[in-house]
Amino acid sequence: MSATTAAVVGASGFTGGELLRLLSGHPEFEVVQATSRQYAPKTIGHVHPNLRGTDLRFSEPDELQSVDVLFAATPHGVSMEHIDAFREAAGTVVDLSADFRLESEDQYEEHYDGHTRPELLSESVYALPELTREQLPGAELIAAGGCNATATILGLLPLVEAGVLTGTDQMVVDVKVGSSEGGAGGGAAASHAERSGVVRPYAPTGHRHEAEIEQFIGSVSFTVHAVEMVRGASATCHVFPDEPVTKGDLWGAYREQYENEPFVELVAGGGGVYRYPEPKAVAGTNNAEIGFELDPSNGRIVVFSAIDNMMKGSAGQAVHAANVALGFEETAGLDFQGLHPVGAP
Amino acid sequence: MSATTAAVVGASGFTGGELLRLLSGHPEFEVVQATSRQYAPKTIGHVHPNLRGTDLRFSEPDELQSVDVLFAATPHGVSMEHIDAFREAAGTVVDLSADFRLESEDQYEEHYDGHTRPELLSESVYALPELTREQLPGAELIAAGGCNATATILGLLPLVEAGVLTGTDQMVVDVKVGSSEGGAGGGAAASHAERSGVVRPYAPTGHRHEAEIEQFIGSVSFTVHAVEMVRGASATCHVFPDEPVTKGDLWGAYREQYENEPFVELVAGGGGVYRYPEPKAVAGTNNAEIGFELDPSNGRIVVFSAIDNMMKGSAGQAVHAANVALGFEETAGLDFQGLHPVGAP
Amino acid sequence: MSATTAAVVGASGFTGGELLRLLSGHPEFEVVQATSRQYAPKTIGHVHPNLRGTDLRFSEPDELQSVDVLFAATPHGVSMEHIDAFREAAGTVVDLSADFRLESEDQYEEHYDGHTRPELLSESVYALPELTREQLPGAELIAAGGCNATATILGLLPLVEAGVLTGTDQMVVDVKVGSSEGGAGGGAAASHAERSGVVRPYAPTGHRHEAEIEQFIGSVSFTVHAVEMVRGASATCHVFPDEPVTKGDLWGAYREQYENEPFVELVAGGGGVYRYPEPKAVAGTNNAEIGFELDPSNGRIVVFSAIDNMMKGSAGQAVHAANVALGFEETAGLDFQGLHPVGAP
Amino acid sequence: MSATTAAVVGASGFTGGELLRLLSGHPEFEVVQATSRQYAPKTIGHVHPNLRGTDLRFSEPDELQSVDVLFAATPHGVSMEHIDAFREAAGTVVDLSADFRLESEDQYEEHYDGHTRPELLSESVYALPELTREQLPGAELIAAGGCNATATILGLLPLVEAGVLTGTDQMVVDVKVGSSEGGAGGGAAASHAERSGVVRPYAPTGHRHEAEIEQFIGSVSFTVHAVEMVRGASATCHVFPDEPVTKGDLWGAYREQYENEPFVELVAGGGGVYRYPEPKAVAGTNNAEIGFELDPSNGRIVVFSAIDNMMKGSAGQAVHAANVALGFEETAGLDFQGLHPVGAP
Repeated sequence: MSATTAAVVGASGFTGGELLRLLSGHPEFEVVQATSRQYAPKTIGHVHPNLRGTDLRFSEPDELQSVDVLFAATPHGVSMEHIDAFREAAGTVVDLSADFRLESEDQYEEHYDGHTRPELLSESVYALPELTREQLPGAELIAAGGCNATATILGLLPLVEAGVLTGTDQMVVDVKVGSSEGGAGGGAAASHAERSGVVRPYAPTGHRHEAEIEQFIGSVSFTVHAVEMVRGASATCHVFPDEPVTKGDLWGAYREQYENEPFVELVAGGGGVYRYPEPKAVAGTNNAEIGFELDPSNGRIVVFSAIDNMMKGSAGQAVHAANVALGFEETAGLDFQGLHPVGAP
Repeated sequence: MSATTAAVVGASGFTGGELLRLLSGHPEFEVVQATSRQYAPKTIGHVHPNLRGTDLRFSEPDELQSVDVLFAATPHGVSMEHIDAFREAAGTVVDLSADFRLESEDQYEEHYDGHTRPELLSESVYALPELTREQLPGAELIAAGGCNATATILGLLPLVEAGVLTGTDQMVVDVKVGSSEGGAGGGAAASHAERSGVVRPYAPTGHRHEAEIEQFIGSVSFTVHAVEMVRGASATCHVFPDEPVTKGDLWGAYREQYENEPFVELVAGGGGVYRYPEPKAVAGTNNAEIGFELDPSNGRIVVFSAIDNMMKGSAGQAVHAANVALGFEETAGLDFQGLHPVGAP
Repeated sequence: MSATTAAVVGASGFTGGELLRLLSGHPEFEVVQATSRQYAPKTIGHVHPNLRGTDLRFSEPDELQSVDVLFAATPHGVSMEHIDAFREAAGTVVDLSADFRLESEDQYEEHYDGHTRPELLSESVYALPELTREQLPGAELIAAGGCNATATILGLLPLVEAGVLTGTDQMVVDVKVGSSEGGAGGGAAASHAERSGVVRPYAPTGHRHEAEIEQFIGSVSFTVHAVEMVRGASATCHVFPDEPVTKGDLWGAYREQYENEPFVELVAGGGGVYRYPEPKAVAGTNNAEIGFELDPSNGRIVVFSAIDNMMKGSAGQAVHAANVALGFEETAGLDFQGLHPVGAP
Repeated sequence: MSATTAAVVGASGFTGGELLRLLSGHPEFEVVQATSRQYAPKTIGHVHPNLRGTDLRFSEPDELQSVDVLFAATPHGVSMEHIDAFREAAGTVVDLSADFRLESEDQYEEHYDGHTRPELLSESVYALPELTREQLPGAELIAAGGCNATATILGLLPLVEAGVLTGTDQMVVDVKVGSSEGGAGGGAAASHAERSGVVRPYAPTGHRHEAEIEQFIGSVSFTVHAVEMVRGASATCHVFPDEPVTKGDLWGAYREQYENEPFVELVAGGGGVYRYPEPKAVAGTNNAEIGFELDPSNGRIVVFSAIDNMMKGSAGQAVHAANVALGFEETAGLDFQGLHPVGAP
């Protein structure tokens, strides 16, 4: 039986490399093209040292091969320019940028600048499979959810679904992220000497992922900090429900939402060193750890959510979505369990 | 002219070592005793490699010398047991533990267990000089403010003083701290392999420093995370004033509070890499960086506050308080400017 | 077809956890027992957060089940005490300690203290499959090679085999290792605050792994430094052959030795960021990266060798050896490719 | 009494910022000019967050003020182009680049390209005050020694002076350095995501500092690795004297050389956590820690040398040299003791 063919556009970036890693170890996919204007025709191992064992070479993005699935790991704004070429090349396009994540042009304009293909916004399926699994089978244009939005939505969704949060509640989301969120390259602020060891407010207000969160959860007060790690996104959500809840209510809501989810682990208290979600515990995996605590002194629920931004926050989520879209086993190619101990992956 | 003599009790711990460093470089103090039951009679450089140039040796805590000022850097609960001996040995006692920080026994009981000398709570002066400077001159029992409380109070105080916050507002405080907050020693969770690279919720709710904050600011929703650094505490305060404010109002409030403060720097926006407060920018110094941003979408004020927990959060604050108490130049011994670039100090 | 059953003794340690991770994802093995005196009967996920998805619980080491393969991940000296019980429980014992790595009691006494079962030293097979592959099929007592020895031997072996080094040459080996080499637990020196950011000479001379190296390569001048990472061992070998060699000679020797090895990658120069072996490029994998450079000014060959000490340096090597011993595909369960980018894993 | 005036050319770089920090806290100097083509006329705190308290602004390098001492912190090759302007502006020029470190044009040509002012090489004084103190008073052109050379020379000098090494011995120097050695800016390899957590051979052979070392110590086999820290250089020297030596001989040689040196600390064995030189123990200071061990198995002496490359390796060394040249107290402005604990500064 022949494999499902895949192409990765923008394959020299961090997310592109992660897609190549996942797809090359995937039981169903065969990667036949990896584009990079800058690095063609070098081998992909030239940029991604973990893929040195592969013979695949970068090719020019202007000559797309015909494939079953095309993954676009290009910067925001690029996919909408090339979407026709992408769709001509592949029956299924999974875009990892923000170009097709929002539902309407108005929403897009509020947070970004000038969508050139707004008519596709209603067609595209937002891919956070725990939330939109039913819409994915057969989808032809898939927009993989953003990293910080994914962490936040997964943390708060059970409270919304259970009616604990009603959409008008005060929701503060304080996010901590690693340097890979900035992508390859970057200027002085991204240099090791300046970026090392920081707790740096990099999006005090107005982070664009607010738009994705608002679509599903409601308006949040959102702040993002850069901290010392390369991979990882951790969202701490401080929410104040109108009605008091018990710890049991919370366990009920989270178990109801996630007990059958292959990529969500509830981690809330208990003993040992790892009592709550931590990004380093999920580094390299497509898992999300979700936990919570109740603050008796003020009725606050504190929700912790940790993912690997390169995986559950982008490439892993894209492959997961493609698995669902094409009818593969959901966890195919995504079964890495993570490492212990591990430093600051 | 003879120097003012000083003793450090609990001198082998991290905070004790920092006191020794500061006092040995202080123009007014001469350290005559450094106690450590475990390390006496080794030299202090045996434990603190930066102090190898000193001949001072640890001595037994049971034989306190008579000094002008005694700094107690002992674990919580120890100072209250030995306070009579401390006060017999020294006219001025500066305690760095939580033993004498709260105003009443009731407050103490709510957050800690069993105060043995509650009558001293009303006598002791809480030392966060930006807040309690007037009470310090001549004080005989000084309780240096806690690290996370200091970061939070310094961040929110101008809003309270200016009437922007009224004490009934929603205040979420999300804190990120380094590993030195746990002190020397520590178990498996503090080992390098387990602690490296974390964003770890270590006090999801119920952190004891809430009590100190409540004394001056009001009740806060408080959560503390361990992140990858050794020194540093960063508080992000998300607050929602009842009445709308402008950026100009905020600048006015913060300038009014801090423009003459030698250890507070306002850092709010502007260009370059370091646009908001960052703990690594103040590492090794007694400075606090304070900044803020206004979120137009929800009326939120986001306040950022960064200190070195070993300095402004403990030893530096103690020396600052002693300077004020004894009438020295406030910045004496505390003029280190910090390093650039620097990693994760 | 029923799986090959496996037990891990000492399963709560770092190496034990790594074995559990590898074996639980291995196509041939089924882990039926994981012992830990301290943590029985908690789930293995209590200690190893990456294994929370497993139901397996720690059991007491005194009640060993009968299995096909027993992996002993106990501290040095423990295996020799319990070797009879291990061998009664399992037809194949793979020991990860140093107990059975050396060939003679004399050698052992020179570097360690008092072997209680010296008669087994000649029976055991040293497992560094690139070196001893032929002796492994059917072996019943396997001693997996040590991490620093593995890195060094893999780096220098091709030069010995090609006759570039003759055993009497000057060989300086300067090793840099991560904190996981110290194992779980550890005292003050292993705490995050003291261990972070170090370049610390921890074995200036006299490291016990010299004995293993001497068995295969010859006597080396060996020094080990602790550096800031959790996983990883990197050996830089400075060697001075008697006869001059060319770069072509070196490429010939290394290709000859390793071109068919599934776990060795030659990385020597070329372009891009990753031009020579780096431990972070192999973190989480069973791969060794080997590279070299020729110093025209003094005839020196500089050899770089990088492994993940938890994998190629212990657990991965043990599973690799078991694969060979039992006739499985060599790479079974060991095909993780590693991550890019990644921080300090 | 008026202060000695100083200018820093190239003041926006890492070394320039360190000079500004040191000079602004120096009892004798007043900084009157800090040049930066890129950042003029911003305040120096725009680039160096630790210097936000200063009003000084960057000015254009084309308009040099007349000062007593000019410190040039420009890239290699720039000083030789502007040396006439520098010397016209200042009676004493301290250059931190490699332009005037070597003694002859031939030496320079061997390691660098095309010296435009070779006649100045014999006039300039190499500044490693422990080595060239006598030549510094009154010197008008001073070339501060390079970081890796400084660490190496300080480590080996006592052995040369004591005749333990004779210049024909085998000397392997394995160096580990932090990211600040690469200076501000830098490309992909210097980005946080790629540079974090590395043990990366960045100069396997042919590092230019070999030339400086050769001038004073002899030819060395030199290899430099980038490791995870921002500040710091650590040299491990493996040397093989022709004649056997005792530990007592070594202590004698090192004490003889350094017992009166204000910036050299001997750290060799003993107890506690910090038994040998470590860069983090000297971070922020002008100190060098030097230690050694004797390897009985092969007659090797292992010498460890640790400095802060930004201080003893450049800016601190330059200020130290200026202190000697101008007759100030040697330690003036250089008395910071360093921090404990500290992470990866």
